[in-house]
Amino acid sequence: MKVLVNFQVIPMGTDASVSAYVAECERVLSDAGLEFELHANGTNIEGEWGAVSEALRRCHERLHELGVQRIQSVVSLGTRTDRDQSLRDKVESVRRQLG
Amino acid sequence: MKVLVNFQVIPMGTDASVSAYVAECERVLSDAGLEFELHANGTNIEGEWGAVSEALRRCHERLHELGVQRIQSVVSLGTRTDRDQSLRDKVESVRRQLG
Amino acid sequence: MKVLVNFQVIPMGTDASVSAYVAECERVLSDAGLEFELHANGTNIEGEWGAVSEALRRCHERLHELGVQRIQSVVSLGTRTDRDQSLRDKVESVRRQLG
Amino acid sequence: MKVLVNFQVIPMGTDASVSAYVAECERVLSDAGLEFELHANGTNIEGEWGAVSEALRRCHERLHELGVQRIQSVVSLGTRTDRDQSLRDKVESVRRQLG
Repeated sequence: MKVLVNFQVIPMGTDASVSAYVAECERVLSDAGLEFELHANGTNIEGEWGAVSEALRRCHERLHELGVQRIQSVVSLGTRTDRDQSLRDKVESVRRQLG
Repeated sequence: MKVLVNFQVIPMGTDASVSAYVAECERVLSDAGLEFELHANGTNIEGEWGAVSEALRRCHERLHELGVQRIQSVVSLGTRTDRDQSLRDKVESVRRQLG
Repeated sequence: MKVLVNFQVIPMGTDASVSAYVAECERVLSDAGLEFELHANGTNIEGEWGAVSEALRRCHERLHELGVQRIQSVVSLGTRTDRDQSLRDKVESVRRQLG
Repeated sequence: MKVLVNFQVIPMGTDASVSAYVAECERVLSDAGLEFELHANGTNIEGEWGAVSEALRRCHERLHELGVQRIQSVVSLGTRTDRDQSLRDKVESVRRQLG
């Protein structure tokens, strides 16, 4: 089952600056061969449910290996059966409405 | 890796009342043998990452089988290495602080 | 406009244990006279949009005053016009479905 | 207090296609004079807490006026006192880490 995801990783118990950890997760997503796109408050990801879940799990594991004691992630995930839709399609649908 | 999750399933393209679909996901979680607890805006779940992810995937599949064309789920998930913590522990930690 | 909210406050740049900060937000919600209920991964809140938003803002302010440098909050909020619904109603609707 | 927000509006009880409603919220944000940027799973917004909250409230009101009976929104919001940070800064911090 294909899923479109917004993923925001929130390292806790670290310094307030966490960009190095977010960057590490981008590397994990890239290594997983997933399509993804960073934005200001998270990363959009497109892929099969199992592959995406596995990549997010590896991201948590990797940050724990780097010494992060606690991680809270916020994941918004969508599936649909009425039509096949990509991340790009979603943005374009709204832009078309805006004319 | 153990994970504590808050899961809110949001069926789209259906009637505005969705309690039957939320109930169906509770049955999926129960069938999966996971520890979980319904609250007003979601369900807290405790389990291994893979088992939880698989149960959430089955919930999406089940609702699509029932005719829901589109599902958006919001998942907040936490992992930590500093100590083992259950759903019950989290509530009790805050209640102890409140005295 | 009445809103039903799930609110999860995530202090960053602190120790990994954050229950004292979550408890402080419970006090802010109580002082605001809102109806709310703590659960393992957040707090459900019921109230008028403006009053709820103002209480969440005060929670952020209070934690910053206590020295928390960075706070990420996850807020899931629902409004509906088809019927009046309380936090308690939502749980009971699902429980009725489960029989 | 300045806040950086990711806002995902989820109309319920409608057709499965909701881009017209998402577009309407973009117009509300634009009318509010806020800085914002659409992405595949939401819209990033930068502004004062009160102005952002008021714009999100107007978005819900507007969609209800258009006949949407139920709306669930997911809002991830961050505040920090250690430094002033814009939406653009957040993306650039991660990109610098990626080299």
